[in-house]
Amino acid sequence: MRKILERLSKGLISIEEAELSLKSLTISEVEDMAKLDIKREIRIGIPEIILAEGKSITQLEAITNKMITDTGKAIISRIEPENSNIIKNKFKDFLIEEYVSSKILIIKKSSKQPTKIKGKVGILSAGTADIPIAEEARIILNEMGCEVITEYDVGVAGLQRLFPAINKMLNMKVDVIIAVAGREGALPTVIAGLVDIPIIGVPTSMGYGFGEKGTSALMSMLQSCSLGIATVNIDSGIAAGILAIIIIKRIHH
Amino acid sequence: MRKILERLSKGLISIEEAELSLKSLTISEVEDMAKLDIKREIRIGIPEIILAEGKSITQLEAITNKMITDTGKAIISRIEPENSNIIKNKFKDFLIEEYVSSKILIIKKSSKQPTKIKGKVGILSAGTADIPIAEEARIILNEMGCEVITEYDVGVAGLQRLFPAINKMLNMKVDVIIAVAGREGALPTVIAGLVDIPIIGVPTSMGYGFGEKGTSALMSMLQSCSLGIATVNIDSGIAAGILAIIIIKRIHH
Amino acid sequence: MRKILERLSKGLISIEEAELSLKSLTISEVEDMAKLDIKREIRIGIPEIILAEGKSITQLEAITNKMITDTGKAIISRIEPENSNIIKNKFKDFLIEEYVSSKILIIKKSSKQPTKIKGKVGILSAGTADIPIAEEARIILNEMGCEVITEYDVGVAGLQRLFPAINKMLNMKVDVIIAVAGREGALPTVIAGLVDIPIIGVPTSMGYGFGEKGTSALMSMLQSCSLGIATVNIDSGIAAGILAIIIIKRIHH
Amino acid sequence: MRKILERLSKGLISIEEAELSLKSLTISEVEDMAKLDIKREIRIGIPEIILAEGKSITQLEAITNKMITDTGKAIISRIEPENSNIIKNKFKDFLIEEYVSSKILIIKKSSKQPTKIKGKVGILSAGTADIPIAEEARIILNEMGCEVITEYDVGVAGLQRLFPAINKMLNMKVDVIIAVAGREGALPTVIAGLVDIPIIGVPTSMGYGFGEKGTSALMSMLQSCSLGIATVNIDSGIAAGILAIIIIKRIHH
Amino acid sequence: MRKILERLSKGLISIEEAELSLKSLTISEVEDMAKLDIKREIRIGIPEIILAEGKSITQLEAITNKMITDTGKAIISRIEPENSNIIKNKFKDFLIEEYVSSKILIIKKSSKQPTKIKGKVGILSAGTADIPIAEEARIILNEMGCEVITEYDVGVAGLQRLFPAINKMLNMKVDVIIAVAGREGALPTVIAGLVDIPIIGVPTSMGYGFGEKGTSALMSMLQSCSLGIATVNIDSGIAAGILAIIIIKRIHH
Amino acid sequence: MRKILERLSKGLISIEEAELSLKSLTISEVEDMAKLDIKREIRIGIPEIILAEGKSITQLEAITNKMITDTGKAIISRIEPENSNIIKNKFKDFLIEEYVSSKILIIKKSSKQPTKIKGKVGILSAGTADIPIAEEARIILNEMGCEVITEYDVGVAGLQRLFPAINKMLNMKVDVIIAVAGREGALPTVIAGLVDIPIIGVPTSMGYGFGEKGTSALMSMLQSCSLGIATVNIDSGIAAGILAIIIIKRIHH
Amino acid sequence: MRKILERLSKGLISIEEAELSLKSLTISEVEDMAKLDIKREIRIGIPEIILAEGKSITQLEAITNKMITDTGKAIISRIEPENSNIIKNKFKDFLIEEYVSSKILIIKKSSKQPTKIKGKVGILSAGTADIPIAEEARIILNEMGCEVITEYDVGVAGLQRLFPAINKMLNMKVDVIIAVAGREGALPTVIAGLVDIPIIGVPTSMGYGFGEKGTSALMSMLQSCSLGIATVNIDSGIAAGILAIIIIKRIHH
Amino acid sequence: MRKILERLSKGLISIEEAELSLKSLTISEVEDMAKLDIKREIRIGIPEIILAEGKSITQLEAITNKMITDTGKAIISRIEPENSNIIKNKFKDFLIEEYVSSKILIIKKSSKQPTKIKGKVGILSAGTADIPIAEEARIILNEMGCEVITEYDVGVAGLQRLFPAINKMLNMKVDVIIAVAGREGALPTVIAGLVDIPIIGVPTSMGYGFGEKGTSALMSMLQSCSLGIATVNIDSGIAAGILAIIIIKRIHH
Repeated sequence: MRKILERLSKGLISIEEAELSLKSLTISEVEDMAKLDIKREIRIGIPEIILAEGKSITQLEAITNKMITDTGKAIISRIEPENSNIIKNKFKDFLIEEYVSSKILIIKKSSKQPTKIKGKVGILSAGTADIPIAEEARIILNEMGCEVITEYDVGVAGLQRLFPAINKMLNMKVDVIIAVAGREGALPTVIAGLVDIPIIGVPTSMGYGFGEKGTSALMSMLQSCSLGIATVNIDSGIAAGILAIIIIKRIHH
Repeated sequence: MRKILERLSKGLISIEEAELSLKSLTISEVEDMAKLDIKREIRIGIPEIILAEGKSITQLEAITNKMITDTGKAIISRIEPENSNIIKNKFKDFLIEEYVSSKILIIKKSSKQPTKIKGKVGILSAGTADIPIAEEARIILNEMGCEVITEYDVGVAGLQRLFPAINKMLNMKVDVIIAVAGREGALPTVIAGLVDIPIIGVPTSMGYGFGEKGTSALMSMLQSCSLGIATVNIDSGIAAGILAIIIIKRIHH
Repeated sequence: MRKILERLSKGLISIEEAELSLKSLTISEVEDMAKLDIKREIRIGIPEIILAEGKSITQLEAITNKMITDTGKAIISRIEPENSNIIKNKFKDFLIEEYVSSKILIIKKSSKQPTKIKGKVGILSAGTADIPIAEEARIILNEMGCEVITEYDVGVAGLQRLFPAINKMLNMKVDVIIAVAGREGALPTVIAGLVDIPIIGVPTSMGYGFGEKGTSALMSMLQSCSLGIATVNIDSGIAAGILAIIIIKRIHH
Repeated sequence: MRKILERLSKGLISIEEAELSLKSLTISEVEDMAKLDIKREIRIGIPEIILAEGKSITQLEAITNKMITDTGKAIISRIEPENSNIIKNKFKDFLIEEYVSSKILIIKKSSKQPTKIKGKVGILSAGTADIPIAEEARIILNEMGCEVITEYDVGVAGLQRLFPAINKMLNMKVDVIIAVAGREGALPTVIAGLVDIPIIGVPTSMGYGFGEKGTSALMSMLQSCSLGIATVNIDSGIAAGILAIIIIKRIHH
Repeated sequence: MRKILERLSKGLISIEEAELSLKSLTISEVEDMAKLDIKREIRIGIPEIILAEGKSITQLEAITNKMITDTGKAIISRIEPENSNIIKNKFKDFLIEEYVSSKILIIKKSSKQPTKIKGKVGILSAGTADIPIAEEARIILNEMGCEVITEYDVGVAGLQRLFPAINKMLNMKVDVIIAVAGREGALPTVIAGLVDIPIIGVPTSMGYGFGEKGTSALMSMLQSCSLGIATVNIDSGIAAGILAIIIIKRIHH
Repeated sequence: MRKILERLSKGLISIEEAELSLKSLTISEVEDMAKLDIKREIRIGIPEIILAEGKSITQLEAITNKMITDTGKAIISRIEPENSNIIKNKFKDFLIEEYVSSKILIIKKSSKQPTKIKGKVGILSAGTADIPIAEEARIILNEMGCEVITEYDVGVAGLQRLFPAINKMLNMKVDVIIAVAGREGALPTVIAGLVDIPIIGVPTSMGYGFGEKGTSALMSMLQSCSLGIATVNIDSGIAAGILAIIIIKRIHH
Repeated sequence: MRKILERLSKGLISIEEAELSLKSLTISEVEDMAKLDIKREIRIGIPEIILAEGKSITQLEAITNKMITDTGKAIISRIEPENSNIIKNKFKDFLIEEYVSSKILIIKKSSKQPTKIKGKVGILSAGTADIPIAEEARIILNEMGCEVITEYDVGVAGLQRLFPAINKMLNMKVDVIIAVAGREGALPTVIAGLVDIPIIGVPTSMGYGFGEKGTSALMSMLQSCSLGIATVNIDSGIAAGILAIIIIKRIHH
Repeated sequence: MRKILERLSKGLISIEEAELSLKSLTISEVEDMAKLDIKREIRIGIPEIILAEGKSITQLEAITNKMITDTGKAIISRIEPENSNIIKNKFKDFLIEEYVSSKILIIKKSSKQPTKIKGKVGILSAGTADIPIAEEARIILNEMGCEVITEYDVGVAGLQRLFPAINKMLNMKVDVIIAVAGREGALPTVIAGLVDIPIIGVPTSMGYGFGEKGTSALMSMLQSCSLGIATVNIDSGIAAGILAIIIIKRIHH
């Protein structure tokens, strides 16, 4: 702005020209703001993740293409096999990583590894069936250059397996623990009663009958008599991973 | 029946008389069956419990009076203070036991202790606020002559308090464990993962927000990844106590 | 522990060696505890049951293999036909029992029958459509060596069929009754009003419209005006069977 | 209409007069229609019932006054004691019947009994606490001149009390049975399995915990595996009474 | 009984023989009672209807076969096409009526028409999509020999179509009206405000978004500000038809 | 009417003839009323839209045929591909427009464009996955001759994209804004806080876990702390479009 | 901006002064934006309404005071009697209007009537108990200078009362109709089927049992088979009034 | 342990004494663990908070007394005025801080300020009525020595107030933002779309009608299309405060 004013002051530009320049300065600021999403990863290393669910294959292709063009990488979550195959075929000249059970597809221009960031995240799952959701978080965290330690199938019905897993997390000095559990969802409660690390609780839709589809696990985490639990939505490994990275970045910046 | 037939066979009574006698025999059987409720305690030691909730004070008085007349004792649950005071005044010539926080009122003709029965029940509560419901179960069990061991405020958020409590139950060789918990309701799950004793889970209405009024705890117990849990309705210490006594009676008969 | 101390006392080992030995003693205790699951059947005859629902075929194969290796037997519940076929093919050199409508698959190393245990369980189902869930319980109980008496399609809408069924249960002196019912779920209420045996109520997801998916039946069992009912989750024949065996074991140990 | 046309035809009135008369005829037909409510009792003996709930005392007074003026009688349901006292005081010169526990207030100009109608209704309640709702139905039916036979506290948890009650209904040849039940709400199911009479199921809000406020009982009646049950809303003794009278009228007209 | 007693009295049989005969008399009474279902149609013309939903094809075949053998006719409701084809093939030597959109299959030994019964039922549906449920009721009623008048697609959003339909019902002097409606379910409310005939409201699962699957329509019928509505479960045309026939039978017996 | 009366008055017709004519006049009025739906578009330009959901293909064909015959055009919404193909084939001699992702099929006799109406509607969608529902509204509005301005994928998580979109709506002087949003459904709230134009909020069923199927978005719009929001049902782009056109018509008539 | 630039260009101010002036211009624009709420009424005549619910009496006093100071008037909704009395006492020197049953309190500096605006709104309520919510809308509309025509107690169970009311609305040429209904909530559906005016549906919390607290009415309005209904939240007469005024303003600007 | 072994090795104690000492060492470890709660604040500065809800006044007094004795301070949340008065009177010799609208009572032995910890938390509330819940978090955070910056009444319906508030948070370099919102709960979504700081969303029970009691706000936060939101239970300012302090401690340790 100062430059425009100086030039006006010096008579190098007319008032009209100055007015126009100032206005377009504002516009370019707005445009900058509008370009914020693309810049986001540059700032904090959190790429936008494309949620495939509810999008048509045409939409998916277009958004994937734009993401690759803009950032060199596209991460697609909750993608069904048939759509995944179409996308993989369409972008077959790129590097492709597919995580079938977690329904994640990553397409990259180059094999350059993400810059390592400081900080570690521990991920525990209560059951075997909760693993795909736990892996959703792990994949996203790895993709952002964050080290992850996992211990799966360590639910509260078998404390003899859970305790060594928690000890491992403590010994590895993780900064955040993501606890993934379906059914009665008691895992974050028990962990939060034992450690002083932020716990992100991820209820999964595992279980059947009354409280099915993750309702029971979600309630347990919100109702927990342990404090220090951050809850995300049912089956939302992605949200847990992103929340973990934001906390990690704060811790280590 | 045989006697009637013998008398007919011997000509002591006419066919008509025999027919009438046989019919009235059936009627008396029906009447016996109709008197079943009163006899129930004699058979298995389980008195009928008067649920005060929803009953008018007039109804309460009448039923209490009938129970005392028929069985020598009336146990009233979920009675509000104002009604309790009226009933206590009305039956002030009898022996009265009142448990204010558990809302139980017991009125007896004599101070005779209930016959001791074999078998022990352990009762654990997760929080302090769950104690009145846990006590509901204890009072009923004691009233039936059953020994009870209690450990309160031993929820899963503090395993260091829970483990000694479970050990005590094992050392005391309890036959059934009643686990009372509100909020996330994880107590029965953790216990059932450690012991091979029948667990009766009692969800309580403690907790607030999403899953309040015991929904969360009830779901957790039904969805539990531990097997061997018998669930009763929210805040239903009475149902847990009666179920325990029925199991105990089976074990020790 | 004493041995270590004795050896230290005798100067056979150094303090460092003693310290290490004591620590590893603790570790081995923890490891013993960690091996608890495998030992479980040995202790009380309750094998771990593999819930197929939510597990990938790769996970199922691995867990099945481990169970057979460790215990000689794998019981898989809620397995869909396509997965069942894969598992059957994979383990075709073993003895295979399949219960299609109950979605249970059992794979065994030997044809040795389970050790008979004392005690009998009666199973009643309200409707024809509830039979697969009732059978879930029966199969598990039989697999544990427990005698089972069944009476199916004896709902409360036809008391003339229900009464003889209950009488049969009483005459056969069953220790526990499992009552399986969908729709209005009144079966356990009527039975518990007539007998003094522990009743395990299993709501099924039969029925449609308001209260579908077992909600109505579950509510009825929890709300029942009869006492003495232990409720398990909707369609949870397995949980009912295991709860029954735990009670039976207590009764006859 | 014909009269108007005849008079026009005869020249006694002009076309304009005829047009006006015909139009006002339509208007008067509309007005007749608008007066339908008042005439209703005359036609089928069903008076309009004033629901006190949600109405201010000023509104209650005005509507009560209008009903008495128009029909000689006002029936007010769900009236709270404080409002009842105000209304009673306001209309103290009339004949007043009050049913406190059923919250019904009837105010009449004369002591004339309602004309007896043919047909009988049987009312059964499962528990003591369901009686006020059952009485709601009885009072309305009596007020319409319909004979009612009642049997209260005959729930399915005590079939020995229920069977004689049903037999009494059959012997008295009732045309319709109203079955009032809270908690698990199984009463109409068991009755409908035994008799071929229309059953009106009234779920009550009795019970606590999961399925409280009548949800469980309502679901049971709608989900019932017995056919022939007409369900009304929770605690809606009035709706049951009116439905019964409409059926009765059809049967005996 | 008398005969047995007479023979004993005459010395033709021994006391033991008499006792045995009397006992077996009771047994045969129980057996008679057990045969009640088969006799049911004879008494009131209501055949048992086989609900295909939740039953395996093996179960369906067996029950269908038993029904045809016992009563000469089997009515199967909610049968899916694949099962329908199997059953039709299995019973191809019998007379078969299939109602594809209403998912009803009727198999008969003879082409004999059901005995006509007095009384008429009117059936109205709010929308085109509600017709299959309305037809469920009509088919059952016709199968029982009851005359039915139908008017479909006459919802309250188009009163100009509804009024003539109601008038037709009144002119045809129907005894009961079945009003079938999904979405906002207002049809029974408007009809019950206009006529004094028993209305059976059948909510259907038509509609989408909030209140989908019939919840909205069911609530509307139970909450209706019109009195005189008997509600059945969502999509339960069968229950409506059977309830109508029971009322009709009462009216015309 | 006057003509009939005049003719009677002049003796040209008899009283009987007059009476009959007057009666048939009423009938023809009723018939006119019955024809209201067809006339509807003529009056306000709102054609009836055929909801395919829940209708059989036979019903769809018949109704489509009737609509084309009566009005020259049929608009079918929520039509599945298989049914769409059948209808397209059946009416292949007409002009066909198909909107696959919005599941709308339009069949017209002539290519005549709808008469342009005054007024503009702005449509914004929060996400890409909400576009098909937004398009539902746009197609209907365009079909009625209404100009529509759209801005998609402008949710509140990216205000830098939303602000220019709102500005565009203001600059284009739209009369009504339709805001389509799933998940947390905050879009209408933020817009209504900034502009003084009627906002129609359309919750979509996008999103997963707790609050899925549009419940969360619907609640947000009804609970909104901004005033001036008209909410329609979940996924109901059609209802939003029609509501917009009715408001537009009022504004510009 | 131009002025600043001109002055800089003319050398009347320095670059620094120009820069500062331009920045403070932006700040003052932001401040203007921040003052938007106060200006709102000036722009479109919609005052901010203070929702008393959830606010402490201290907060209420402060906000009321600020509103009076800023705009000369405070409108408080959902205010409980005790708080109302305190506020009335506090502001007793002002003009006070209180609507007790609608829980609205208006405090004004002067008795100046609001400027009349063009356009009329019709308000209909289904029942007497819905009137306070209907009045909420009326009071707000009147306070904004909008003419309102009301017809109360004209629910769909009595079409003979509803039709004249709708005719009156049409004859008075209202621009928008607000239809207020509890219980089954069918009023907007029936009206929207008859008229082409925007209908704002307001569900009320009247009714009891299943669907109580307005759920049933809300569902009916969202599920309505009539198009053209704008729904607001349960009991939200205020929201309906404000939505109506925004539409009216659009129609008549 | 080493010391015991050394003493044994040196012959200073017998094997028996060593064994006993080692065992009692374990016991004392368990006891230490059992005392964990008291030590907790020492370790990380998080005192246990006494939830008054559901506890009797006797229980409250006892726990408060124990907390003061053990830690010098008791923090009681959700305490009703009557109980608060009793507790204040009981502990009147101590320093008392009461926060009436947030229902928090703090009782301390000394006026010593909590040790300042590094890190700042920003708290924003959407409405005035959400302030007590926001203050719950602030009080807890202050009590732990954490600096808090607050901006209240800055909901998304008035972005002109929200933007300066967010800017202030950024300028003050807060480490965590707690966003407290009722009704549609959109506040955390909008903030998380603008900043890269961990957001803790606290839904409040403000709002009425559909989605009342915080359900709508909770759903919005879990369903949010912005990532990086940690959700806690409805009205759970305490949980948010504790979660914030745990994150802060991680960031600054």
